[in-house]
Amino acid sequence: MTVLAILASFSAMAADSAGDEVENLVVLLTDYGTSDFYVGALEGSIYSANPEARISTITHEVLAFNVAEGSYILAQAARYYPPGTVFAAEVDPVVGTVERSIVLETNDSKIFVGPDNGLFTGVMDELGIDCVREITNLNLTGQGRTSATFDGMEIYGPVAGHLAARTDPAEVGPEIFDPVRIEVVEGDLEDGTLIGTVAHVDHWGNLVTNIPKELAEMADLSPGDRVEITVGGENVEAAFATTYGDVPQGEWVAVIGLLGRLEIAINMGSAAEALGVSAGSEVRVHKI
Amino acid sequence: MTVLAILASFSAMAADSAGDEVENLVVLLTDYGTSDFYVGALEGSIYSANPEARISTITHEVLAFNVAEGSYILAQAARYYPPGTVFAAEVDPVVGTVERSIVLETNDSKIFVGPDNGLFTGVMDELGIDCVREITNLNLTGQGRTSATFDGMEIYGPVAGHLAARTDPAEVGPEIFDPVRIEVVEGDLEDGTLIGTVAHVDHWGNLVTNIPKELAEMADLSPGDRVEITVGGENVEAAFATTYGDVPQGEWVAVIGLLGRLEIAINMGSAAEALGVSAGSEVRVHKI
Amino acid sequence: MTVLAILASFSAMAADSAGDEVENLVVLLTDYGTSDFYVGALEGSIYSANPEARISTITHEVLAFNVAEGSYILAQAARYYPPGTVFAAEVDPVVGTVERSIVLETNDSKIFVGPDNGLFTGVMDELGIDCVREITNLNLTGQGRTSATFDGMEIYGPVAGHLAARTDPAEVGPEIFDPVRIEVVEGDLEDGTLIGTVAHVDHWGNLVTNIPKELAEMADLSPGDRVEITVGGENVEAAFATTYGDVPQGEWVAVIGLLGRLEIAINMGSAAEALGVSAGSEVRVHKI
Repeated sequence: MTVLAILASFSAMAADSAGDEVENLVVLLTDYGTSDFYVGALEGSIYSANPEARISTITHEVLAFNVAEGSYILAQAARYYPPGTVFAAEVDPVVGTVERSIVLETNDSKIFVGPDNGLFTGVMDELGIDCVREITNLNLTGQGRTSATFDGMEIYGPVAGHLAARTDPAEVGPEIFDPVRIEVVEGDLEDGTLIGTVAHVDHWGNLVTNIPKELAEMADLSPGDRVEITVGGENVEAAFATTYGDVPQGEWVAVIGLLGRLEIAINMGSAAEALGVSAGSEVRVHKI
Repeated sequence: MTVLAILASFSAMAADSAGDEVENLVVLLTDYGTSDFYVGALEGSIYSANPEARISTITHEVLAFNVAEGSYILAQAARYYPPGTVFAAEVDPVVGTVERSIVLETNDSKIFVGPDNGLFTGVMDELGIDCVREITNLNLTGQGRTSATFDGMEIYGPVAGHLAARTDPAEVGPEIFDPVRIEVVEGDLEDGTLIGTVAHVDHWGNLVTNIPKELAEMADLSPGDRVEITVGGENVEAAFATTYGDVPQGEWVAVIGLLGRLEIAINMGSAAEALGVSAGSEVRVHKI
Repeated sequence: MTVLAILASFSAMAADSAGDEVENLVVLLTDYGTSDFYVGALEGSIYSANPEARISTITHEVLAFNVAEGSYILAQAARYYPPGTVFAAEVDPVVGTVERSIVLETNDSKIFVGPDNGLFTGVMDELGIDCVREITNLNLTGQGRTSATFDGMEIYGPVAGHLAARTDPAEVGPEIFDPVRIEVVEGDLEDGTLIGTVAHVDHWGNLVTNIPKELAEMADLSPGDRVEITVGGENVEAAFATTYGDVPQGEWVAVIGLLGRLEIAINMGSAAEALGVSAGSEVRVHKI
């Protein structure tokens, strides 16, 4: 972490932009992958609805049909975008079947457009629900292109484009009060042992667990402690540290990551590869 | 598919934007991959020609040198973008050799910049040719950066940037009347059996065939029918349905997809993996 | 290479834009991968600092922790962007440890924001150093989001966003005169044999070496020559040519690539796959 000294100089720029809402910004998250025409079709549908749009992509590589992973990644990334941002998301195991499409407004003035299948559980929990509406206004969706397989380019993209151009969300359809949620399971603490699962394996092979910082504190872990970790049928000993770089290259380390959750890693190595584990594996951690 | 009720409210936004042409929008499709400096060089060349540009990406993962796949993906995605969009595309087995660079204007007011090697066959067929020109005006291309390997950042990017800034296409060079086309083979119907090939395997492992909807109708297929499918040396029985979700998870299904073509899939599974097939495999389908 | 005839017509557009600096353009290069929430968090942090930002991506697939590859790709791509472009880059083996964050202004009026770990060695060498500053002004960085693992979304993204909105670089912190560099090793010529290493394997499997054009000229190579190449324990004979397309499909060819470096390739094939080599392998080339 860079050491920063507070200077007296003040950036007027930062102050000015803080109160404004961003305009024409649409952010995408899907499980479409990036080798088909689907991403282009989705982006095209947004520009067709809003010729001034700017598009940002979180990822198109959510595991196929994995609503829980999509909900998790979306919630973590959404926090960083400014008020006024409109998100269009699709991860949908029941593509092509009858399901509501919704628009969610959160308490921090962000808007989410997508299927009513629990994909927005994470952002509802983290950012707070202001209002949820069902999309019923055909004037805001794709025109005359009927499709049996995708709602993204027919509904979510066009609606997100219009909302990013400041169309009033009240125009999309009636408010609803029963949006679908998925169950999010958090880790547990039993007899001094933290018990959870690997929620996500990141690009470098670090294991992000579902054990929150607060639970690790209740287990009395503090930087400098040694812990024994059981995951994927193997036991490893690790340092509990503040950052990966606190241990030598190639050594095991457990940290509270960017997400406020316990992460298990090898400094500059791949924990997932070393242990042969993936999302869903059970994790046990106790101080030694 | 979300059920939409038509409401009386009308979006002025949608009406306003319909007649306008989008400005400064450049859309990319290449086989460059995303781990080299090539995509950055291409995007940089566009911003250098047009500092107001916004860039959208269909894909950089067209199979290497596969002009037919590039033509197919480009045509499917291009339909969704608004009039005025400029596309820059490069998939070129003969990189570095003497070949014309062209600008294609289509009947729906879109512009395509790339090699004259058949890559625009799909958009010429689907969107209609208004005018094709050879790029000969050096003032619109990269300046002083000579390259033996890539036309994208030297020619297509800069020209696309200028055209997106509303440079008159007539400035690029003289009209030509013999743009190169590749042969597009469609499926066939023989004695009640649909015969075609796998044109594309999508991100989820669904098999998109070259059998058009019209041919499936001539074969008298309608939702609810059972079909026998022969592909990759294996026979599978499937439901012919409207959407993947019409069959239980894990079951075979054949649908007319987003592209108006017969697709063979396993609901929430990978047909390509189950059968070990890839693009090019023969497909036979008949009603049972 | 397209044959271009110089026409008399002159594009006012090209002339106009040449003198201006691009505004609000932020370009990314990281080793984050594209399947996590990290890219979204980085882009969100930029839009939060600068709601007018447009974001371009070189790649998020630099080999994990590989500062040398990041430096190489960044330098090659950066040349193509216009003056005024701001780059935010992170490839950092010592994430989470104490290290300076810097802002580099180059002689061609581009700005680079990232870690002081040698990642900017390539752009310092190719574009020239105008000024380097350490980031110490907390008013320009993320507010209240503390993180033990990533500087990208906390520091580089927000600072890049502000600089792209024309915040004076002098505001970020004091000038420094000892930015970290990594050693860049170039190939050598011994007794008529070119000796170097594979610096990078590109998307198509072409081997980009660290042997510069000048050295190949000193070895008296000219188009039409035959060369013997030793790499990965194998010998292959190749044509030294101007472009890949100068040899038939499937044949070996050595060219001076877009980067002014010797590249070894199979026309329309993968040299890396054929030889089983990757970045770091030794290469020897001599005329036969």
